[in-house]
Amino acid sequence: MDRPVVPLGRPRAERADAKRNRLRLLAVAREMIAEGGVGSVTMDALAERAGLGKGTVFRRFGTRAGIFKALLEEEAHRFQEQVLNGPPPLGPGARAEARLVAYGRARIDFLIDNLDVARAATDRGFVAGPPAAVDMTLTHFRVLLREAGLGLRDPEILAVQLAAALEGPLLGYQAQGAGLPAPEAGPRLADGWRDLVERLFRGEPN
Amino acid sequence: MDRPVVPLGRPRAERADAKRNRLRLLAVAREMIAEGGVGSVTMDALAERAGLGKGTVFRRFGTRAGIFKALLEEEAHRFQEQVLNGPPPLGPGARAEARLVAYGRARIDFLIDNLDVARAATDRGFVAGPPAAVDMTLTHFRVLLREAGLGLRDPEILAVQLAAALEGPLLGYQAQGAGLPAPEAGPRLADGWRDLVERLFRGEPN
Repeated sequence: MDRPVVPLGRPRAERADAKRNRLRLLAVAREMIAEGGVGSVTMDALAERAGLGKGTVFRRFGTRAGIFKALLEEEAHRFQEQVLNGPPPLGPGARAEARLVAYGRARIDFLIDNLDVARAATDRGFVAGPPAAVDMTLTHFRVLLREAGLGLRDPEILAVQLAAALEGPLLGYQAQGAGLPAPEAGPRLADGWRDLVERLFRGEPN
Repeated sequence: MDRPVVPLGRPRAERADAKRNRLRLLAVAREMIAEGGVGSVTMDALAERAGLGKGTVFRRFGTRAGIFKALLEEEAHRFQEQVLNGPPPLGPGARAEARLVAYGRARIDFLIDNLDVARAATDRGFVAGPPAAVDMTLTHFRVLLREAGLGLRDPEILAVQLAAALEGPLLGYQAQGAGLPAPEAGPRLADGWRDLVERLFRGEPN
């Protein structure tokens, strides 16, 4: 219960120079994305701009999609840190209802901000199966719903359904390879989510 | 408001013999699926068993996936008929809350029953973009949520999120090409859905 979310990250120890190269490559890739979008990041262009050999980039990421996968994991790791150890209500120390509302808002922003990178992280343009980041949501919801003690028939399955309600609309964009959602989508989804959570917590069924 | 769901089906008039062939082919395909699963249905085997030329099957369905697409549309049409014109609470005449609960239960069964066919209906093994059947859910939810007058911040977006809550977990199975969900998944999803809807309708936020 004290570590509700499965830690992401690199399981084996990484040599100091390998780590330095990785961080450098990711930082440069972020610069390139900010300047020219995900389309501007190729293995060759990344190696050249980072001043490293192509072999280094290849060994590190394997494929072009691997670059974006690594970027996405870094972002997911950062997001997870806020949920595990950040200030409430996103982090620990608030009630389950407030944490769910805060998580939904932050998660929607995270998914929208990383939509292009997430799409580029898969060779076929869609994520097959739930990425680690989705499992995080599910695990977090399971813990919060159990903690809330709402007298639900089946908190486990409701966690699955709430995760789908939160992430499904944006994973749909990702899977379809359509452009970014309209600028107002984020605030609207956050409002809908807040409605859903507040009513879920306050609606005692007969 | 009196026809909340977009009608599916064949827009242009169909000649009597063409219709007879289509219905015969679909009936035979259903028999084959019942006996040997979707894997047993090929263009050749279907033509032979139906006693029709391969050219007829080809003109009708185009590809093997087209056979399953046609089957899925027939099933979706039948399902839609129950929602539009069947007895309450799935059909008209009950309150929005009861209709949403009934729709969820029926829809979960529909998705589980048609999981293999839906998967076979796409050449690449997953449905790109929402099929017509998904749009039906969204439209239906929009109408019911508006009708319910719950004072929601944004009933339109909540309809999107509820459709994802209901269908996302099963469309995930479909997209991943994994086997059927465990036998208890249907009742559990229906229970979770009922919890969600009942609390949504009874939980007036502060």
